[in-house]
Amino acid sequence: MIDVQNQIDTRGIKIQQTGVTNVYLPFSIWIGEEIQQVLARLRFTVSLNKNIRGTHMSRLMEILTDFSATPLKISDIEKIVKDATEKLETDFSAIKMAFKFFLKCTAPVSEKVSLLDIDCEISADSNKNFSLKLAVPFTSLCPCSKEISDFGAHNQRSICRVKIDFTDVENLDIAEIVKLIENQGSSKIYPILKREDEKFVTETAYQNPKFVEDILRDVVLAIRQIENISAFEVECENFESIHNHNAFAAQSETL
Amino acid sequence: MIDVQNQIDTRGIKIQQTGVTNVYLPFSIWIGEEIQQVLARLRFTVSLNKNIRGTHMSRLMEILTDFSATPLKISDIEKIVKDATEKLETDFSAIKMAFKFFLKCTAPVSEKVSLLDIDCEISADSNKNFSLKLAVPFTSLCPCSKEISDFGAHNQRSICRVKIDFTDVENLDIAEIVKLIENQGSSKIYPILKREDEKFVTETAYQNPKFVEDILRDVVLAIRQIENISAFEVECENFESIHNHNAFAAQSETL
Amino acid sequence: MIDVQNQIDTRGIKIQQTGVTNVYLPFSIWIGEEIQQVLARLRFTVSLNKNIRGTHMSRLMEILTDFSATPLKISDIEKIVKDATEKLETDFSAIKMAFKFFLKCTAPVSEKVSLLDIDCEISADSNKNFSLKLAVPFTSLCPCSKEISDFGAHNQRSICRVKIDFTDVENLDIAEIVKLIENQGSSKIYPILKREDEKFVTETAYQNPKFVEDILRDVVLAIRQIENISAFEVECENFESIHNHNAFAAQSETL
Amino acid sequence: MIDVQNQIDTRGIKIQQTGVTNVYLPFSIWIGEEIQQVLARLRFTVSLNKNIRGTHMSRLMEILTDFSATPLKISDIEKIVKDATEKLETDFSAIKMAFKFFLKCTAPVSEKVSLLDIDCEISADSNKNFSLKLAVPFTSLCPCSKEISDFGAHNQRSICRVKIDFTDVENLDIAEIVKLIENQGSSKIYPILKREDEKFVTETAYQNPKFVEDILRDVVLAIRQIENISAFEVECENFESIHNHNAFAAQSETL
Repeated sequence: MIDVQNQIDTRGIKIQQTGVTNVYLPFSIWIGEEIQQVLARLRFTVSLNKNIRGTHMSRLMEILTDFSATPLKISDIEKIVKDATEKLETDFSAIKMAFKFFLKCTAPVSEKVSLLDIDCEISADSNKNFSLKLAVPFTSLCPCSKEISDFGAHNQRSICRVKIDFTDVENLDIAEIVKLIENQGSSKIYPILKREDEKFVTETAYQNPKFVEDILRDVVLAIRQIENISAFEVECENFESIHNHNAFAAQSETL
Repeated sequence: MIDVQNQIDTRGIKIQQTGVTNVYLPFSIWIGEEIQQVLARLRFTVSLNKNIRGTHMSRLMEILTDFSATPLKISDIEKIVKDATEKLETDFSAIKMAFKFFLKCTAPVSEKVSLLDIDCEISADSNKNFSLKLAVPFTSLCPCSKEISDFGAHNQRSICRVKIDFTDVENLDIAEIVKLIENQGSSKIYPILKREDEKFVTETAYQNPKFVEDILRDVVLAIRQIENISAFEVECENFESIHNHNAFAAQSETL
Repeated sequence: MIDVQNQIDTRGIKIQQTGVTNVYLPFSIWIGEEIQQVLARLRFTVSLNKNIRGTHMSRLMEILTDFSATPLKISDIEKIVKDATEKLETDFSAIKMAFKFFLKCTAPVSEKVSLLDIDCEISADSNKNFSLKLAVPFTSLCPCSKEISDFGAHNQRSICRVKIDFTDVENLDIAEIVKLIENQGSSKIYPILKREDEKFVTETAYQNPKFVEDILRDVVLAIRQIENISAFEVECENFESIHNHNAFAAQSETL
Repeated sequence: MIDVQNQIDTRGIKIQQTGVTNVYLPFSIWIGEEIQQVLARLRFTVSLNKNIRGTHMSRLMEILTDFSATPLKISDIEKIVKDATEKLETDFSAIKMAFKFFLKCTAPVSEKVSLLDIDCEISADSNKNFSLKLAVPFTSLCPCSKEISDFGAHNQRSICRVKIDFTDVENLDIAEIVKLIENQGSSKIYPILKREDEKFVTETAYQNPKFVEDILRDVVLAIRQIENISAFEVECENFESIHNHNAFAAQSETL
């Protein structure tokens, strides 16, 4: 059977990335001290030499399906891209793996334990680039609203999205980074809160008012302390309770 | 050229709805006293006799494209489905038209004027059924949090989604229904608020605490007063500022 | 601490559903012969007596968190709603649980095994209502395009969404229902296809052209044969390769 | 009334971007020879000096609301960011404006005219950076499937997403760029096709088979010919009719 993909291409363009995207597979990932089985949404690509017409995408699906079965440490993800460069006979491979994982959290007074869902995306390539995206939710309470109002203060759910480039992921603990970021809002949020916890969270937020700019600056200061990173981007978004649009602040730094 | 759609079908199933969906077209709609040009997302279907294999979908696209050019009153939408029953030679046609429109709103103290986006979906068919879906945003402030906390109270953006079946749409004013619903939250929300407005909105919400159940009941009481309706469904959803999930309440009634 | 939720309400409205929505939790579900851990998106509600102001939503989250830890058969889901009626002291509870699961599939010639992701939503309530929604992908190839063209025929990915109401779920095998539906397209689709499989799938679809109406009718005929069902709804949608909109057909029946 | 935003900040971080996001407003944009009213989704930000605590976001909403009322040429968008730097007394402002617009297209044989919806996002800032994102749909037909199969060939809807950085937008005609890109697929697609057009489109695609890599390379060659550009990124995605995932290729170049 003819291999049309292997036909010669004369357009003179080496393709940086070709492969599969929007692939869903289960993966088992070490998060802190435990393995979590996650629903991963994946993009998996390789480079393609300028004289070849197309890549063999079914091989990429076979590699992903194989790795889907084994528990992986974050640092094992480079094995996936290494496997692709070998099996596809190319000099570059990249993967993006997005998934929700769950963080055990303990209510501040009742100490009820619950599971907070966190969106995460890992990008890695065969050049040893590695970046981690996290979307961490918390409460923000508006300092202006508190100051100018005789009582109350508008507050809302907020999301802080970070993208951090790591130079070494051997000891990367994703859960620790989530905790670092969720501490920068007006209060942390929890799936299960009993009344005594709700009082605690309400009062904590009221005593800790923060603009989206305050949160951004505090997250920037916190991330600068993380070890083994080369660059980061931060976006904070408040789903304003008094508007139908959102407040937003963004910063990026190369270290 | 052979008309494959017109082949005889022997499976004995009259099809209730066949047509096109996820169609985007501009439409001009009378909202209150003014015409708004909207980006409509449409589903447009007809029934199909049991002995015919397929319908002629390009005719449905031609009808939509024709009506896209002319300003329509809400009550004109039945002309679109009537046109389909005639041109497709069938006994039933239905349309769904979803779009955002803008409601002029005036800040409570500064009186600054701004445009609030509202999601709307109209469903109509050739049997004179007509239903209107609206998603109306406002603020909710938690009565429990206010009562048990020494200061402050958690609050958040909320959405009330209603679906109302009308028996007559001749005098239907969509903007009036939005205003009826947005009054049932703890406070209305506005795209533009100066500081004096923010104080007003913050204090109004604090003095008007409502659970998602309170809002649901008040919306139910309000909708029961609308004329020319035969049934309704209400869903209220609070994007809780202290959780990563939402509070929810729902009710449906046939009048 | 005062229980604001337990305050007396005088509006005279018994609420049909109040609770939590957009909750993400891991669940372990028996699918056929194996347990799959899934990422579930949940809505979980109870009714509320007309003289009580609000429900205790944290109890709903506690129930979900408890059940998240244990493997469940489909028929166990009624235990969750039963638990809610007891712990919330009410006469009605309902749950919606949406998740992706994976179906093992075998390529038609190479027999390569891969995992196909299927969207599923289970709705159950304490009145023993149970419905299953599935979104099953396959290929459709247009009979008109094939007939009128000198070569080739346009084809595309299609989704068939079904909602089936069951009277008994003791022996419900979700994977079997997926297989029943995916057989009604022009060809099944697979995550991993080697060249010999691609030839097979291409030729199979070409020899089995189907309009969206053909697929709808064949799915209706197939579903009517399922045991222990009381009603169903079918929606077929073809992501037309020659348009930027979709072809659509829908049918509902009560048995 | 105290101006909390104007309080002194001592964290020493100049904020790159702070403002509003997920704002919906109608805008009137010149596309080619005509004004189209579009539904715009906006992000609008300014920089913030390191010694100031917060920006005045209501002013950003006022600026957007003002510009919403006037027809704009693409090159007028820099007036919006200039207005923000002045009114917010800052040295940098940026805007993102995403919207659907409609391209008139003519069926290849019947010459029926219809409107094709195209997703577009414009990014501009006060440093005269300007980039245009477009998502252009067309058909792709697989060369391998055609070659190895005795009849037929799998094909599907594809999207090509480009991001082009312009050095000068005085004569930028967005519609021309869409047309340039849609010519690189196996066939263009159309909202309205009569039978003679469907035959034409089917046969054209069959005679013009292209891998996602072929399309990427042809789009790269085409974009390199556009005047006044400094860099571009291309992503091609085929919604494979034989899989539940997509084929993907990406390239970026600085000129």
